[in-house]
Amino acid sequence: MKTVKPTAISGFPEWLPEVKILENRILEIIRTNYERFGFVPIETPAVERSETLTSKGGNEKEIYSLSRLAAEEGEDSVTEMALHFDLTVPLARYVAQHYNELVFPFRRYQIQKVWRGERPQSGRFREFYQCDIDVIGDGKLSLLTDAEIPSIIYHIFKEMRIGRFVIRINNRKILQGLFQYFGIADGESAQVMRIVDKLEKIGTKRVLDEIKETTSVPHEKIHDLIDLIAHDYGNSEILAKLETMKLNDLFCQGVEELTSVFNAVKSLGVPDQYLAIDLRIARGLDYYTGTIYETILKDYPGIGSICSGGRYDNLASHFIDKKLPGVGISIGVTRLLSRLVEAKILQPGPSTVAPVLVTTMDHSRLADYLKFATRLRSEGINTEVFLEELPLKAQMKYANRKKFMFAVIAGENEFAEGKFTIKNLYTGDQQVGVTDEVISIIKEGSATFL
Amino acid sequence: MKTVKPTAISGFPEWLPEVKILENRILEIIRTNYERFGFVPIETPAVERSETLTSKGGNEKEIYSLSRLAAEEGEDSVTEMALHFDLTVPLARYVAQHYNELVFPFRRYQIQKVWRGERPQSGRFREFYQCDIDVIGDGKLSLLTDAEIPSIIYHIFKEMRIGRFVIRINNRKILQGLFQYFGIADGESAQVMRIVDKLEKIGTKRVLDEIKETTSVPHEKIHDLIDLIAHDYGNSEILAKLETMKLNDLFCQGVEELTSVFNAVKSLGVPDQYLAIDLRIARGLDYYTGTIYETILKDYPGIGSICSGGRYDNLASHFIDKKLPGVGISIGVTRLLSRLVEAKILQPGPSTVAPVLVTTMDHSRLADYLKFATRLRSEGINTEVFLEELPLKAQMKYANRKKFMFAVIAGENEFAEGKFTIKNLYTGDQQVGVTDEVISIIKEGSATFL
Repeated sequence: MKTVKPTAISGFPEWLPEVKILENRILEIIRTNYERFGFVPIETPAVERSETLTSKGGNEKEIYSLSRLAAEEGEDSVTEMALHFDLTVPLARYVAQHYNELVFPFRRYQIQKVWRGERPQSGRFREFYQCDIDVIGDGKLSLLTDAEIPSIIYHIFKEMRIGRFVIRINNRKILQGLFQYFGIADGESAQVMRIVDKLEKIGTKRVLDEIKETTSVPHEKIHDLIDLIAHDYGNSEILAKLETMKLNDLFCQGVEELTSVFNAVKSLGVPDQYLAIDLRIARGLDYYTGTIYETILKDYPGIGSICSGGRYDNLASHFIDKKLPGVGISIGVTRLLSRLVEAKILQPGPSTVAPVLVTTMDHSRLADYLKFATRLRSEGINTEVFLEELPLKAQMKYANRKKFMFAVIAGENEFAEGKFTIKNLYTGDQQVGVTDEVISIIKEGSATFL
Repeated sequence: MKTVKPTAISGFPEWLPEVKILENRILEIIRTNYERFGFVPIETPAVERSETLTSKGGNEKEIYSLSRLAAEEGEDSVTEMALHFDLTVPLARYVAQHYNELVFPFRRYQIQKVWRGERPQSGRFREFYQCDIDVIGDGKLSLLTDAEIPSIIYHIFKEMRIGRFVIRINNRKILQGLFQYFGIADGESAQVMRIVDKLEKIGTKRVLDEIKETTSVPHEKIHDLIDLIAHDYGNSEILAKLETMKLNDLFCQGVEELTSVFNAVKSLGVPDQYLAIDLRIARGLDYYTGTIYETILKDYPGIGSICSGGRYDNLASHFIDKKLPGVGISIGVTRLLSRLVEAKILQPGPSTVAPVLVTTMDHSRLADYLKFATRLRSEGINTEVFLEELPLKAQMKYANRKKFMFAVIAGENEFAEGKFTIKNLYTGDQQVGVTDEVISIIKEGSATFL
């Protein structure tokens, strides 16, 4: 009968239940915090017109387009549709399309899979979750929005308990002002920005070399530039230093924005040690125009940025004749999860979301077991009943393999007394009690389950 | 600048935030109840090998395959991958692939989008959410599992508050036993099953005609068969009647299973009026072999079944040489949502998930507004702060358009007294109080928000 060998497709991750439970916990923390700050959910189709996806310069080699495996008679199987490769282009199309129905500033979150046809050998994911928030203004958007974002990032990663992290903040205008001051031509500045962005990855020396190859600016000036960018000051020191520099208008505007954003972030209750003003953060993408963010795990800097984003001047110029400035961030959960599990920062736990298994040693009393389970569920306790007619030993083996926290057991003795035995499978503790007592034990114990 | 007209793609639904909030509420009710009964989450890639999808006879005209918009040099852009069209084939592949790592009975839920390349003119969705649960046994699976499913369905639709509904239950063996008894040949029975399944849609007369065309069984016998199937008895009456009939082994086995499932469902606390034993339910799909379910809204039967499924003998015979019987159901949320909104059973509400907007009439006191919002959030209250510097009137207009329940207002007077004004925008009530008083008012009021 067997005709097809079931195997994984490279680049398309698939988790066992215990890891998927972890992923869901991460997604839930992100969603809850996005909602806590008043972001509304939207979801765009996985599929967009191909021309929508390429209009903003998406890489055609990485875009999956759709055809039907077989065509209807007299019909072409090729469609003009393709899978989205991020959530920003779909957001731009959505905002343009529904412009008249949306209320601005439009604060949306979007948690969806995206697809990129990367070469499988690069070890990258070709299907992964992105969790984005963006705030889009109609014509203008307060700088305070830029300050709210790090506060959200702070709450999310605090709740995730993945160790010490730091949110790095910079402002593109400062970098551009510096480039101007050091005489880097406008045409070269995007390229220099991309090189600066690699400072941490490839180090000062190689960055210097690469910049020297790109521009005709005298070498000593480039050294001064990189010395300043790769500084090692504290937040107040660097702000104070930048304040005195007054190199040019763009630079000063950047410093003013950064200072104001930084102070408002602190008003929102983010402690100083979670924030780092860092001039090395440049973000490769051209469309950022002001504040930019990255977040790294202090003890695992090799994982790279786990949450990045920034401010842009115009979201949807390809789709609508309106000026729509915005600011947003994206968390790539699939990559984050796989790295956290790899680094053992997160450990897969139970392969059940129910703390309790009600065992059924006497199938003639099934109605009682089922009634008890119904009661537990009505108390909001996730409960599984073991429904197969098997010896208790086999049932306990099942409970241990799935890592239930509690097993409820009842036989002749318990039924005679109107009680249930409740066994904590993590500690081995075993107690006998009436329904309400068992419920209390479960509620108390399962507070730490998952 | 504008180069692409942003428009909807037919068959790919996209909601405004107020509808997406409704959809999330529905998905959350389903997820919570699936977890309440101890189902674990899994997620399979949207993409499977094409041969996996066609192995079980998927319709190739409806399957979207993937190629890259542009090929890498020397590489073919065509992939051998396609988008899944349901969650059952991926489940079969998953269980076969991870057989050794899973614990059986394997109880999983899966909530994901699926894609079908239907003709757009049929008004069907080409991308939609399915919410599936299945329990898969290794070798065998207790009939009690069949009884647990309607209990889950009951809790889900009860909580959704979408009016009166009834879960219809039947058993394929009864229908097959009847067909045997009435002399319908084995080769004809699958076809007759599909015709019987249309009883409600096309009526007794057309079903009789169609069956007469299909089989050579004498007409009066067909009338007797359809009379029995399209009965109008209560649950206990029909069970009693079936019990006495003893037509043949298959029939008797079906009656025994149905009776036992029905009684166990009631043990699980599902009231009789939510259950209907209905011999008309046949389910078109060939792979069902025992219990089958459909659920309809009593006041909107035209919507058709909103949750269907059943028992099958062998999940994954194409992928693994193991007997894996299972039982499961699927809720098609996209269709359900769109019909419920169309029929005004569900009405889109606020376009915010936060009940509270903190307005900012005096931007020199911004730190105070932000601190207050942080306090509300720490109490678990979703809170948005209006960050643009605009007159209070514009801020209140924004609050009303998004249908916030509460606006918090503070100016010179409030700050002098250390208080905040809290306005209920639904009732017009306005009160002034210290932080803790305002929090109480919000907590109490927002219990009914969303």
